[in-house]
Amino acid sequence: MPEHPTFDILTATCPSRTSLARIANKWTAMVVIALSSGRLRFRDLRTTVDGISPKVLTDTLRDLERDGIVTRHVYAEVPPRVEYELTALGRTLHAPLQALGIWAEEHITEVLAARESYDAHT
Amino acid sequence: MPEHPTFDILTATCPSRTSLARIANKWTAMVVIALSSGRLRFRDLRTTVDGISPKVLTDTLRDLERDGIVTRHVYAEVPPRVEYELTALGRTLHAPLQALGIWAEEHITEVLAARESYDAHT
Repeated sequence: MPEHPTFDILTATCPSRTSLARIANKWTAMVVIALSSGRLRFRDLRTTVDGISPKVLTDTLRDLERDGIVTRHVYAEVPPRVEYELTALGRTLHAPLQALGIWAEEHITEVLAARESYDAHT
Repeated sequence: MPEHPTFDILTATCPSRTSLARIANKWTAMVVIALSSGRLRFRDLRTTVDGISPKVLTDTLRDLERDGIVTRHVYAEVPPRVEYELTALGRTLHAPLQALGIWAEEHITEVLAARESYDAHT
């Protein structure tokens, strides 16, 4: 990618590949899309990202927090209330990830037809 | 995503989620980016996508072929020559996946700083 000559995801040792691995992930995409309209509690995220297991959601949120994409807000209540929110950096990721989600929704009919054709010939 | 009410990646049973899982993947992103400038042989793809193992490349190409994103051209030579190319559907995926690659390259400095800060506090 000539636009950014310092870092190159196609080079195995480039640190940018570790960031690509994190963002090019279906759970990351769904969590970022879910958080795009505002902060959410863990249980609300679980409801919005239908089918995500508590462990996968916990791991995804921790990894996104570590990469500076999500931030946690902890309120000193009993029991403690915790909310998750996209950071400024995380908000820059919303458009590209939403584009992937829209692609998946727009093209699934073609993808399903391709799978049917492939499976009939193999 | 109100734009496409029929399919919704946030619904666990929606088939579009299986497509999202395929495209929101670092190897898919790198292979589609590598093929964006034209068809390539297996060994050239291995060189371009630095560090990909033969098994992962084989699996990725087969999955992308099944989903109608990549097509194989087999030439009756000895030994047979095989080239891989994006389909028309696959070419529509290039821009969103390249946007993810560019994001990873543009923001890796911020991501590395966030990781350092996170690791210092946990």
